Formats: sequence, structure tokens, C-alpha cells
Amino acid sequence: MSNILSDASLDQIFRNARTHSAWQGQEISDVLLEAVYDLAKMGPTSANCSPMRVVYVRSAQAKERLKPALAEGNVGKTMAAPVTAIIAYDLEFYERLPKLFPHADARAWFAGGSPDHVRDTAFRNGSLQGAYFIVAARSLGLDCGPMSGFDNEAVDREFFPDGKVRSNFLCNLGHGDHDQLHPRSPRLDFDEACSIV
Amino acid sequence: MSNILSDASLDQIFRNARTHSAWQGQEISDVLLEAVYDLAKMGPTSANCSPMRVVYVRSAQAKERLKPALAEGNVGKTMAAPVTAIIAYDLEFYERLPKLFPHADARAWFAGGSPDHVRDTAFRNGSLQGAYFIVAARSLGLDCGPMSGFDNEAVDREFFPDGKVRSNFLCNLGHGDHDQLHPRSPRLDFDEACSIV
Repeated sequence: MSNILSDASLDQIFRNARTHSAWQGQEISDVLLEAVYDLAKMGPTSANCSPMRVVYVRSAQAKERLKPALAEGNVGKTMAAPVTAIIAYDLEFYERLPKLFPHADARAWFAGGSPDHVRDTAFRNGSLQGAYFIVAARSLGLDCGPMSGFDNEAVDREFFPDGKVRSNFLCNLGHGDHDQLHPRSPRLDFDEACSIV
Repeated sequence: MSNILSDASLDQIFRNARTHSAWQGQEISDVLLEAVYDLAKMGPTSANCSPMRVVYVRSAQAKERLKPALAEGNVGKTMAAPVTAIIAYDLEFYERLPKLFPHADARAWFAGGSPDHVRDTAFRNGSLQGAYFIVAARSLGLDCGPMSGFDNEAVDREFFPDGKVRSNFLCNLGHGDHDQLHPRSPRLDFDEACSIV
């Protein structure tokens, strides 16, 4: 594979893609929500462990369950967004490894092992998948508004009461109002973040 | 924005993209390594905190420094890869927030605060950026071989001796030999990983 995506595509998923807070009103169909996941799930995770779990909060009733957990500055935009995805990770992801990694007993690498190792693996790979999810949504023409400003434990009590799944971040989804974007913030230059040795 | 990327592009970054272990011999230029970062840096992080740090290990000498930290099964493919990126995160990322988030004193949200909150923020957002990095590399025609099978502390001692930066995962980069790929492993179905409420 030695192709480079078109400038329009690179703009759409990286260069011109912005975090949105103001939303146009269109609804998002089940088909599109499934299509986002069906792309995101293809991204790599260690031992294909795939710990990400997603709750798409779309109904007014479910939005009300989410509302008390939101930081004040995130309430308006989240209640207005067509969908808010709770990006979470399953601390018992290893129970799916017989399906996901059928050529070895990968379950045994985690089950009953170090809780820190299990948690780090779920958090790292669930976060990787969360980023694949953002890029997948953008590649299908959706705008994203990811957020860490909420009470994780409150979300977990409300949406994941069995204690096995933990919220990672929230991501509003919809078609953003581009006229209401602020200028983009700076990024670190190559030499501030990278080296070649 | 309501465009959908072409099928060829979606195939390249998600559907047909595979984790590679066998490499064709081409070298990777500084320009291409910089271009991967310049796309990846545009992806969203909380408060634009941008904690990812990357060491591109390309020289034979630097590869030898990395070798003792690798799990046995990862030695051959990593030594053969044109470049191995150490994807890391900076636990003092907040020192860059005056540049990255100039419209508020975001540094004060982290400096001197809970070490767990700082570490979780660095790990979550550094992992998100690691995934942007993988997609960016693929979007520029590179193949990736991300790995968690190595001794993180050994890598940190060798490459980040000041203790402020921690390795997250490794990612071999190059042009893979597609004839040596195994069949793709299954993914979780939508209903196994997602719900709409």
C-alpha cells in the first residue's frame, strides 16, 4: 500500500476537523451509528482485545439520565447534540478473547492476573478505539465533540451498574455549526514532541 | 461537512489495514515521519493537552538500545522494520498548556494536582494521539505494526531517563509484505459492544 489519501480526505479527518459545541438539528439514524462502529472496530488493539464499549445516548429520556453527571459547561451542548456516545471500556474484556483471538488462549494472559495490567490494557486499548471512533465518525461526515468534563463515577453508576464497564470519555455526534467555531488552538511543533534517533 | 470518504480511503485506513510483521526494505525519510506527526497532532485531546511524545527509532544503533526491552516474539520484526516509533506520554504535559490552551490558565488544572488525574489524562489522551498516529501513518501509505509486548520500564530507563515521559506502546512503520499476512481476526458485532438508548 503506497497511496496517500486525497487532500480533501486528510482535511476532513484531520486538518480541518474541529471539536464542535453547536449543532444543527438533524437526527442520526441507527444505520449511521452502526457504520461508525463497523469502521472503528477494525482498528488494531493488543491481542485484538477490543475493550471499547459504546452507549449511544440519543433519546430525551436517556439524555436526562446523563445530564446530572455533566460538568456545567458541557450541559447545553450535550443536551443539544443529536447523539452523545459514552465511550467506555470493559474491565472483563478478556472474556471475549476466545472469539477475538482464537489461535491462542489469550484469556489466560489476563483472567486472574494483575488488576493493574488488566486495567491498563483496557484503558490503553479502549482509548485507542475511542480515537478510531472519532476518526471513523468524521470519515462518514459526522462532526464530533469529545469531552472529559463529567463525573465518571456518576455515569458508571447510571449506565454500567454491574461495575465491569467504566466510562472513558463522552463524544457528542452530529452536524456541527461551523460558523460558531473559534479559531483552532496551536499544536506542538515536531521538535517539541518528536525526535528521530 | 457531510461527505463520506471514498471506499478506497476507508479500506486503506480501516477495512483493509492490517498489523504487519514482515517488511519490505524501503527506508522512511524524515519528511514522511514529520508528515505523520503533522497529521496526528491535529486530532482532539482534552484541553488540547497533547501529551504524546514520539521517538522514531531508525538507526541501527538506536535499534540495539531498544532490542533488550522487546518481548522475544517482537525482536525479529522490530529489528527488521525501517522505523520503530516509541509512542510515549509526558507526565508534565501541563507545562505546555500556556502555549496549547492560551485562553485560560489550564496549567493550574493539573500542576500540583492529583497525580492519578494527571496520569490518567496523559495516558488517555496520549493513547488517543497514538491512535491518530496509526491512522495518520496509514493515510500516508505506511503500514503499521503496533505492539504492547515489551518492558516499558526498560524502555523508559533507556530513552526517557528523566522520569517525566513514559512509554505507552511501540509501533513499527514501513511498507509491509502483504503476502505474509494471516487472515484477519474477528471483531465484536455491534450488539456485543454497543447499544442505543
